[in-house]
Amino acid sequence: MRHDHLISAAQLSRSDVEAVLDRAGEIADDLAAYRDSRPGLVLGLCFFEPSTRTKMSFDAAAKRLGGSTIDMGSVESSSVTKGESLADTVRVIEGYADALVLRHPSEGAAKLASDFVDVPLINAGDGAGQHPSQTLLDLYTIREENGLDDLTVGIMGDLKYGRTVHSLAAALANFEVSQHFISPESLRLPRSVRFDLHEAGAQVREHTELEPVLSELDVLYVTRIQRERFPDESEYRAVAGEYQIDADTLAAGRDDLTVMHPLPRVDEIAPDVDETDHARYFQQAHNGVPVRMALLEMLLENHGGIS
Amino acid sequence: MRHDHLISAAQLSRSDVEAVLDRAGEIADDLAAYRDSRPGLVLGLCFFEPSTRTKMSFDAAAKRLGGSTIDMGSVESSSVTKGESLADTVRVIEGYADALVLRHPSEGAAKLASDFVDVPLINAGDGAGQHPSQTLLDLYTIREENGLDDLTVGIMGDLKYGRTVHSLAAALANFEVSQHFISPESLRLPRSVRFDLHEAGAQVREHTELEPVLSELDVLYVTRIQRERFPDESEYRAVAGEYQIDADTLAAGRDDLTVMHPLPRVDEIAPDVDETDHARYFQQAHNGVPVRMALLEMLLENHGGIS
Amino acid sequence: MRHDHLISAAQLSRSDVEAVLDRAGEIADDLAAYRDSRPGLVLGLCFFEPSTRTKMSFDAAAKRLGGSTIDMGSVESSSVTKGESLADTVRVIEGYADALVLRHPSEGAAKLASDFVDVPLINAGDGAGQHPSQTLLDLYTIREENGLDDLTVGIMGDLKYGRTVHSLAAALANFEVSQHFISPESLRLPRSVRFDLHEAGAQVREHTELEPVLSELDVLYVTRIQRERFPDESEYRAVAGEYQIDADTLAAGRDDLTVMHPLPRVDEIAPDVDETDHARYFQQAHNGVPVRMALLEMLLENHGGIS
Repeated sequence: MRHDHLISAAQLSRSDVEAVLDRAGEIADDLAAYRDSRPGLVLGLCFFEPSTRTKMSFDAAAKRLGGSTIDMGSVESSSVTKGESLADTVRVIEGYADALVLRHPSEGAAKLASDFVDVPLINAGDGAGQHPSQTLLDLYTIREENGLDDLTVGIMGDLKYGRTVHSLAAALANFEVSQHFISPESLRLPRSVRFDLHEAGAQVREHTELEPVLSELDVLYVTRIQRERFPDESEYRAVAGEYQIDADTLAAGRDDLTVMHPLPRVDEIAPDVDETDHARYFQQAHNGVPVRMALLEMLLENHGGIS
Repeated sequence: MRHDHLISAAQLSRSDVEAVLDRAGEIADDLAAYRDSRPGLVLGLCFFEPSTRTKMSFDAAAKRLGGSTIDMGSVESSSVTKGESLADTVRVIEGYADALVLRHPSEGAAKLASDFVDVPLINAGDGAGQHPSQTLLDLYTIREENGLDDLTVGIMGDLKYGRTVHSLAAALANFEVSQHFISPESLRLPRSVRFDLHEAGAQVREHTELEPVLSELDVLYVTRIQRERFPDESEYRAVAGEYQIDADTLAAGRDDLTVMHPLPRVDEIAPDVDETDHARYFQQAHNGVPVRMALLEMLLENHGGIS
Repeated sequence: MRHDHLISAAQLSRSDVEAVLDRAGEIADDLAAYRDSRPGLVLGLCFFEPSTRTKMSFDAAAKRLGGSTIDMGSVESSSVTKGESLADTVRVIEGYADALVLRHPSEGAAKLASDFVDVPLINAGDGAGQHPSQTLLDLYTIREENGLDDLTVGIMGDLKYGRTVHSLAAALANFEVSQHFISPESLRLPRSVRFDLHEAGAQVREHTELEPVLSELDVLYVTRIQRERFPDESEYRAVAGEYQIDADTLAAGRDDLTVMHPLPRVDEIAPDVDETDHARYFQQAHNGVPVRMALLEMLLENHGGIS
């Protein structure tokens, strides 16, 4: 991998992806061996939006490498409220840290910020845009369970608004993967995403029901359908119920079906699935640590080390 | 001590308590010697309610052992606001950390959470329930000053609502301690707590005034009477004033009387007590660090080490 | 330097200042060499007001020395909301940490707090009062670019309310520096500050326009004029515009003019200045790390080390 910043999963070639996942696999196999890899590392956490999972797993990743983090805190407690521009904020913080992780509500924020800083910057979500480290941990999880070729993946739920889905679909287009998209009509993949997948030569089919395609799937990736996307509560309930799964639903799937979810979930996966061998969503979240350790290591190596 | 999680002080036998306090004493005697005890430790701080003392002292404890912490942040800044269950939150975070500390507004939350995780979990307060590491640091402080047997302890203030008081009283029942409870009628120990103390064979007496019993006490443990427990301000003032102490009050006590308080205090101990030899409440707070270091060490040893 | 606490820049003699800046310079020259200087250090961050820059750079400073920090969090999430006094809060936290950094909205808060604690305490801003580590990094930046003698410095903007300005002006009075103050009439230096500068023998002149004095300056230190200082928006706009600079403005200055700003800026320095050789405000912010590392080192050395 030869990048200064990681802004979008689209930057990553198939071999880039494989290099990160290979490194993450080595790390996961012997986490304790990396305890002193980056003793002087100071990672800057710049989260302009709330986050639990992403922020804590980057935080843990830095510390599992023997490094530390400094946290900008919430927007309310920062000088952003005094009218400071994003460019100024990151230019200040880059002087305190060896690398930056940025989450921001505006699409394109990470790209803009990266133009102003010299230290490696990782996009940890820019509005409806990209979240490439999420995509890498999704791919890592799929590969661990099923490999990444000759694979059939179903992606279900809100396919219209989810940056996680768009980014994962684009990344899977680099591999021999059949992609099935299952959603209500009103939450289909955006036309532009479908077009890009088509251009990339991805094998894509769309469905409004899970049942007809379930038995073909190696992986079922479920996402949350948000109440606020619907004009009224009754319509939401009618639609959302169709895309909720439980252990009974999965009985019609393959025995080795892997169920994933970017979390947090609300009702879309019933708790009885947790006890089945299908459930991989907690492991998927946990994989964020070795994947982000690998990413940090590789970006810092490119950059020529830390202060 | 042989426990996976620490949920309640009631789990701890007398010899468990003594083992933790012994270890804490060794640590306090030579803090610097423990600087590299747990170089790879990552402790997850999950505080669903505000906390200064407890959170900072667990944070300091992890760092004084050479480890680090990752912090969930406030509920407002976490995915809890997206409707995630407590069980899901802790199952995600356990993948990032070697042990968890949980504070939650609901009684029973820590027990529930501990059923879902494999890493050691410490209850740092669950509503009106338990807060066992507070009890251990209270016992540590008492033992340092007075030993834990042949002792007369007065506990004064709000005895009805305080989890600190209930937990301490239960723990003291394991030792040769006479317990005197001093409170307004409306804030007496709950019937259930009195019953449990009776069952445990504790030596208990209740009073509405401090004066008659003060001269017998080795330890006076003061707690805050909260304004919001009273229907109106004037009634609060009338009652609360009776349970406030100053240097003059203590002149009628023994010369070696130890005054404790879980802090924060408001008016219940006048600042002139700070200058007397009776005051131990700041030392008591400070004891949280070695006690929590000992706890972490012992739980991690049971658990077979960290990642 | 022989101080237990750093409350005000006025404590520091010329040789104290030079000792800190010398040490900071050594650190900046070889940051990696200090990675293990203070392996057991736990620094307590007590910010009763929001802060990005100051807090993150103290945080980074502790970590670049091989130490760690514990953070009180926001006032809303702390026991301050339960009515605890500042004296109690710092007396508790000093038991968890080897040194404290305090920011507080009330002038005099740091002095008061320092009377109650034994560990070194650094004032990181007390209302309209002092912020001595900001002054030291300002002086460091000026010295790096221009030395600290035979110098002409212009300070422009809100000279009435800014603690940064008052503190810097007082510190510059120890050196051979001509000071020019440029501001609207309504935001002139307070009479008391002018008086103190006069008493200290400082060479001071005041102006309402930058243009007449610009060509003489080695350093132009710009500060923000806050909207809320003016009765109405139109008056603010009329006045503030006079004290905004861009690359064109600076064309009339010396080629080696250094432009500084404590940040965050809003409109007072146009982005086109960032590209010029004059701009030093980001470097100035970055200098906060080595300067604060030097400060921590020197206060801890005086104090006889850490636990």
